[in-house]
Amino acid sequence: MSAPHLLDRPHHDGSALYLDRTEFSLGEVGRVRLRVPRGFGEQRVVLRVTRDGDPLKLPARVVAQDEHERWYEADLPVDNPVVGYRWLLTRGDGYLWLTGRGLFARDVADAGDFRVTSYGGAPAWAAGAVGYQIFPDRFARSREAGRRRPPDWALPAGWDDAPAEQGDAAVRQFFGGDLAGIAEHLDYLDDLGVNLLYLTPFFPARSSHRYDAATFDHVDDSLGGDQALGVLTRAAHARGMRVIGDLTTNHTGDAHEWFRAAQADRGSVTAGFYYWADDVPFDLHRWQQSLADQWGGEVASAGWVEPVDYVTWLGVASLPKLNWGSQELWDRMLRGPGSVVGRYLRPPFGLDGWRIDVAHMTGRFAADDYHDAVARAIRATIDATGGLLVGEHFYDVYNDQLGDGWQSVMNYQGFIKPLWSWLTRPDSDLRFADLPVPIPRRPATDVVATMRDFDGSVPWRLSSRQWNMLGSHDTARIATVTADPRLVEVGAAWLFTYPGIPALFAGDEGGAVGVNGENSRTTMPWDQIDAGGGPRWDGAAFQRYRSLIRLRRASTALQDGGLRWAVITPDAVAYLRETAGERLLVVLARAPWQGTRLPRWLLADGATPELLYGGSAAATPTLTVEDALSISGEGPAVGVWRLE
Amino acid sequence: MSAPHLLDRPHHDGSALYLDRTEFSLGEVGRVRLRVPRGFGEQRVVLRVTRDGDPLKLPARVVAQDEHERWYEADLPVDNPVVGYRWLLTRGDGYLWLTGRGLFARDVADAGDFRVTSYGGAPAWAAGAVGYQIFPDRFARSREAGRRRPPDWALPAGWDDAPAEQGDAAVRQFFGGDLAGIAEHLDYLDDLGVNLLYLTPFFPARSSHRYDAATFDHVDDSLGGDQALGVLTRAAHARGMRVIGDLTTNHTGDAHEWFRAAQADRGSVTAGFYYWADDVPFDLHRWQQSLADQWGGEVASAGWVEPVDYVTWLGVASLPKLNWGSQELWDRMLRGPGSVVGRYLRPPFGLDGWRIDVAHMTGRFAADDYHDAVARAIRATIDATGGLLVGEHFYDVYNDQLGDGWQSVMNYQGFIKPLWSWLTRPDSDLRFADLPVPIPRRPATDVVATMRDFDGSVPWRLSSRQWNMLGSHDTARIATVTADPRLVEVGAAWLFTYPGIPALFAGDEGGAVGVNGENSRTTMPWDQIDAGGGPRWDGAAFQRYRSLIRLRRASTALQDGGLRWAVITPDAVAYLRETAGERLLVVLARAPWQGTRLPRWLLADGATPELLYGGSAAATPTLTVEDALSISGEGPAVGVWRLE
Repeated sequence: MSAPHLLDRPHHDGSALYLDRTEFSLGEVGRVRLRVPRGFGEQRVVLRVTRDGDPLKLPARVVAQDEHERWYEADLPVDNPVVGYRWLLTRGDGYLWLTGRGLFARDVADAGDFRVTSYGGAPAWAAGAVGYQIFPDRFARSREAGRRRPPDWALPAGWDDAPAEQGDAAVRQFFGGDLAGIAEHLDYLDDLGVNLLYLTPFFPARSSHRYDAATFDHVDDSLGGDQALGVLTRAAHARGMRVIGDLTTNHTGDAHEWFRAAQADRGSVTAGFYYWADDVPFDLHRWQQSLADQWGGEVASAGWVEPVDYVTWLGVASLPKLNWGSQELWDRMLRGPGSVVGRYLRPPFGLDGWRIDVAHMTGRFAADDYHDAVARAIRATIDATGGLLVGEHFYDVYNDQLGDGWQSVMNYQGFIKPLWSWLTRPDSDLRFADLPVPIPRRPATDVVATMRDFDGSVPWRLSSRQWNMLGSHDTARIATVTADPRLVEVGAAWLFTYPGIPALFAGDEGGAVGVNGENSRTTMPWDQIDAGGGPRWDGAAFQRYRSLIRLRRASTALQDGGLRWAVITPDAVAYLRETAGERLLVVLARAPWQGTRLPRWLLADGATPELLYGGSAAATPTLTVEDALSISGEGPAVGVWRLE
Repeated sequence: MSAPHLLDRPHHDGSALYLDRTEFSLGEVGRVRLRVPRGFGEQRVVLRVTRDGDPLKLPARVVAQDEHERWYEADLPVDNPVVGYRWLLTRGDGYLWLTGRGLFARDVADAGDFRVTSYGGAPAWAAGAVGYQIFPDRFARSREAGRRRPPDWALPAGWDDAPAEQGDAAVRQFFGGDLAGIAEHLDYLDDLGVNLLYLTPFFPARSSHRYDAATFDHVDDSLGGDQALGVLTRAAHARGMRVIGDLTTNHTGDAHEWFRAAQADRGSVTAGFYYWADDVPFDLHRWQQSLADQWGGEVASAGWVEPVDYVTWLGVASLPKLNWGSQELWDRMLRGPGSVVGRYLRPPFGLDGWRIDVAHMTGRFAADDYHDAVARAIRATIDATGGLLVGEHFYDVYNDQLGDGWQSVMNYQGFIKPLWSWLTRPDSDLRFADLPVPIPRRPATDVVATMRDFDGSVPWRLSSRQWNMLGSHDTARIATVTADPRLVEVGAAWLFTYPGIPALFAGDEGGAVGVNGENSRTTMPWDQIDAGGGPRWDGAAFQRYRSLIRLRRASTALQDGGLRWAVITPDAVAYLRETAGERLLVVLARAPWQGTRLPRWLLADGATPELLYGGSAAATPTLTVEDALSISGEGPAVGVWRLE
């Protein structure tokens, strides 16, 4: 018995097949389409569009049909900045709703509705972007790097040392990579195929991660200083690559000049940039203690909580939290070309945007919530240069990503965690970064439901540019999570064939390992890379990533096509990525399964399925064209075919 | 085979068994509890509490246990005005989440989390409230009413005429009820047991519904004027009853003095109270036309859309929409004791609160969204007198009801529609007020899931005071929806045993009928009522409602107890309402079912189940105490027992 397919259900998403435009202005009337397979039995189709808090119910008319499906179309008036909509289909057995979370034969909450935003989203160039995250201390040491003295806080490490897993060593271990080191390896990155470099912080600090900035006025001299950043961005631009930085808007370091001035004089202007115990509407020590109490005290890092008289990021004394009640802070940090955000987007620096650290916490403390306003202000400054704004957001973006702020978010909930839950080894004792539990092994039926829960209501304009990864500098590595190169390949194939901006954490492409965020901040073993392999470099993995990136960059359907689920079984999924002229079929299996039979007519008339990518560590399923498209059930397996 | 019960699952809700307080102030640390039945197999329990956008994971400790269950407790720091939380339970097979929407063995979006609010909610007196909606034109004519001349717009009707179903007649049909007529029947209402009268609008207008106010300065003379309102509220208060009014903050009538002055002089102050075509960022005629296009033009009322040069409520020319961009409007309407909201809460009027018409649309137009601010301002004015604020909200309140605004909402999505879907006759062609489809017949499994979707994330402080009805002046009548007095009794038993403020639309208690909102605005047949029955009055139904109301008012568990689902099958549900000293079991069946067996220990030691309410039109199930509590499967059936 082959696994049943889902292509007998109505489908809509926010891609160009289903909306007549990608950008909406307030007050425009778009047209929105629904495809309904023949045999579904619908009697009537209505579009419910919420306007001024109250839904319109607009009739849908058939605009195209053939023997396989009917296409309906309805007007979509965008009369509020963000508009929710859903489809109503009536049948003999009652009515159904199609929302961003799926098809329901009962009434469901509005929070699952599809949404469009009139605020816009990521710049057009992001459609073709393939991201690559670089932790500057760990990527490469340039020739000059060896001539610099390590900073006073540093614990110098050998390039091939394993990063510490926790504690002070993890923070101070200093490998000495620099910006010129990155510039020296642009050939490598070009060959891999990535074109959007994301650098974790480059400001002076007192840790190797540099999220504890001591100033935002210049680039850390131990990375090569301001000049090195300009050299890097110019060299990258010359190759058609872009570069974004990483900024903390939630906190600074306690060595920051603003904070030191504030500590020295509570009457100073910059004292207003922080929260002091006296300003807090409750006992700050109790607030700090609840962080230490977390997870029953079993996590060693709970010991980091120190009683201080100012508010911090999660109790870490070295990270005083910024108070956006200060207008002066807005001007210095966010607003206009001379602000921190603005200045590095222009010569001589020339960044192409920013990733914002703990975006979901920014501006939020007690009764204050400046989150939306801060995000909008950063966005305005970035929009002036056509750059990209990525927020680090660990949780549900339903209310935090409407289009006016973060164009993209690091998609831990909607991509990384669900993917890991599908591919983890069953007996893993690795933990998610945000939960005190081992990563569970879940069936794809659950995993895809979770993805839709988190992504389904995000306007497609945004969800199609979420920053998707296999792991980051804050998590374990996918190679360690799966402990199976075949499953790594399955995960990588999902990443590069899925909506979003696919991004690697430097080293993923060579099979880098790591049990948690600190331990995963591995260096690049350039000698082994140059040799095509070694104990820390899997040359075959590199070739697989390289092929997947090429596939991604060559296909409009993979970059911008709709996403239609064809099969969701515990051990395998299949989906279609579709534009008006292109239809790709992706099949991913974590284990052997029963295979499936898809409708024959998915294949364009006269065409033969073209295998664009097959497993090399994993197996490649067989696709046989008979009265149906029969797909075999090997696993782990990967197959990507062009059907049209 | 008896239906399986759900009491083997962990449970939490926001009631006093599970939270150590009902009111939270910002910065307080509450304690929150979870009960887990023995045999569930949990290894560890953690409370996830979102703070400043990022969840804490706080350990839960066992605080009580016996052979049946364990009680866990964790700290709940309320460090933001509204705080979301959920329980994490680990087991050998992975981890589970318990959220406001249920128990999940996969990751789910934060929008389903339980929430607490530090803003407070309805006044304490609302706990014991049983509501009764009165449409003044249709309740009773006093002796004086007959001496008044009908208004010039009125189409006088005979008291026993059926209300028109649509069109101009429905709006202008005038039966001549007045406020003194209500005051004359307080004995009747007292006997029924209701204690919170909700009057639909009493301001002068040009329709019998009076939602098109011509002024807010005085009570309509055709209802008896200002004096009659004061007489009514004083008489009600003398009996321990309260009275709330009904105010349109979304619009006025086009005969309103503000609007007439504005039309006469666009430079006048009150011109700024409305939206004119010139202010609209798109073509207003197009906006109006989309309303006419709704539902494919098949609904006659679509013809009401007339092209006018101002913004209206859903295209109705007689209802110009208010523009809350005007500060003068805030002062006249909302702010302080002299505003419209404030003035009627004080002598000589003495209202106990307001119901706000189309609350979900109020302040929302195009890029403007004053909804939250308007709700807060009304709330502040009402809070000053300890009154009740009920919003009419037809949709998802997830973002619209956080505690700072509406204390309660008319619960169409979370109660009325799901209940109807369970009890409707299968072949009904009646429609929901908000959808162009017949009411579907759904299994209770779907119906309860929908209720949890809409209510699960509303802070219990608020959800336990939602304004629940069997139908209103805007819907069909329950007697018509079910066409079966047994099912009416099942629905009424659900209403009066469920969390919320249970409320009737006058006439429900005598079996009033109606196919839609207009047609349901029936008069009270006082001659038949006095006679104990007649063609328009079901005296037996009245006695059933009267008994259910007495049951409700006598039980703290029904008013304020937790809600634990015991059985959910397509044709029957059972739930427990529990406080520390009281445990009631409610069993409701729409049709014969297989019955169930509940754990014996739900019955207090040495106690015998006491039947508090059994079916009179419907059957009463048998509850037999053996090794389990065996419940028989008759249907339609109603049974309410005290177990402790």
